[in-house]
Amino acid sequence: MSEFTLVVASKNHSSWSLRPYLVLAHLGVPFREVLVALDTPDTAAQISRYSPSGRLPALLHGELVIWDSLAICEYLAETFPEARLWPQAPAARAHARSLVAEMHSGFQALRENMSMDLRARKPGQGRAPGVAENIARIQAAWGECRARFGQGGPFLFGHFTIADAFYAPVVTRFVTYEVALDAVGQAYRDAVLALPALQAWTEAARHEPPVARYALP
Amino acid sequence: MSEFTLVVASKNHSSWSLRPYLVLAHLGVPFREVLVALDTPDTAAQISRYSPSGRLPALLHGELVIWDSLAICEYLAETFPEARLWPQAPAARAHARSLVAEMHSGFQALRENMSMDLRARKPGQGRAPGVAENIARIQAAWGECRARFGQGGPFLFGHFTIADAFYAPVVTRFVTYEVALDAVGQAYRDAVLALPALQAWTEAARHEPPVARYALP
Repeated sequence: MSEFTLVVASKNHSSWSLRPYLVLAHLGVPFREVLVALDTPDTAAQISRYSPSGRLPALLHGELVIWDSLAICEYLAETFPEARLWPQAPAARAHARSLVAEMHSGFQALRENMSMDLRARKPGQGRAPGVAENIARIQAAWGECRARFGQGGPFLFGHFTIADAFYAPVVTRFVTYEVALDAVGQAYRDAVLALPALQAWTEAARHEPPVARYALP
Repeated sequence: MSEFTLVVASKNHSSWSLRPYLVLAHLGVPFREVLVALDTPDTAAQISRYSPSGRLPALLHGELVIWDSLAICEYLAETFPEARLWPQAPAARAHARSLVAEMHSGFQALRENMSMDLRARKPGQGRAPGVAENIARIQAAWGECRARFGQGGPFLFGHFTIADAFYAPVVTRFVTYEVALDAVGQAYRDAVLALPALQAWTEAARHEPPVARYALP
């Protein structure tokens, strides 16, 4: 099988890049990483070398270019079925895809006001209109998922799935902005924070040069 | 197999609702439709009866609730593999999922400034910053897709797929706002407009009571 290359933006800021990284790292397959520096005169041209949409992340695999975080995860789930990146039962899988798609297109208030910033601590900031509703919905969704599907492990569907990769950036926001969580939320947050791949990514983020203005999705 | 129920919002305005409707209609399976009236004191409560995220569309199937347009389409693709709702070849399927995911999370300028309004004609309106770039990107994506994968039919991947369902609301916006298209774009637009299911949906939209303010995604 030809090599995987994951093209990512800032590790400190790019929540979209973190998601497929966690999935690739979970798989344990070797992959090359290309980090595009943000806020340089050359950034747009660099991204366009890899991604037809002008956005990152992108996964390169042989001739193939996959230019969206969710499409990358679906491709990896099909390529490595034994990794159970989606839950096996159809009902659980449909539930997982609903949760992931809700994150992929939604939670605008949270995303705009509590943008990912791994190395910062911003207690009390980001409490704009709509943010509290987003947080409540996320905790309710986590709680329902853990109760219905979470037997057999600490993740949303027990074992690690794409749903956890999609909510991992939210977990880091809850740390950065010091959002109080219920007991289920705290336990789930801690399970995600214990992922070695998230810890490695966070450590790399600490050593990144700061960007003046983070303008990628 | 138990019955499918698709819960949708305004036919005139809800681009998200239109997408899984086109896929269900393409499958030719019987399904029940529930239309939630917008802009009533009861709207939020009505939606919450069906969708845990407070958003529509939602697909009900037996005990199962799937509350996002893309998750619904993935579920239907798995349930009816013979319908080839995704392209069969892995590379084409990964390309299709990238296109669909790009639509699912992106094109904000287009979505905000040229919102779907099937029965209106608004020539010249909606040309806000970023909209021209969105339109150019969509036409480039259509052109590449038709050239690489479009043999054997008039749709993005030849035969009808989920990618066409996802870009159908964009086609209607290009009609409503009278956006000039290149030759490939015109031919593709006309193929989508000829879909009987889109024509039936549009006809129903004409008879809907107007809504004062369209606030759903």
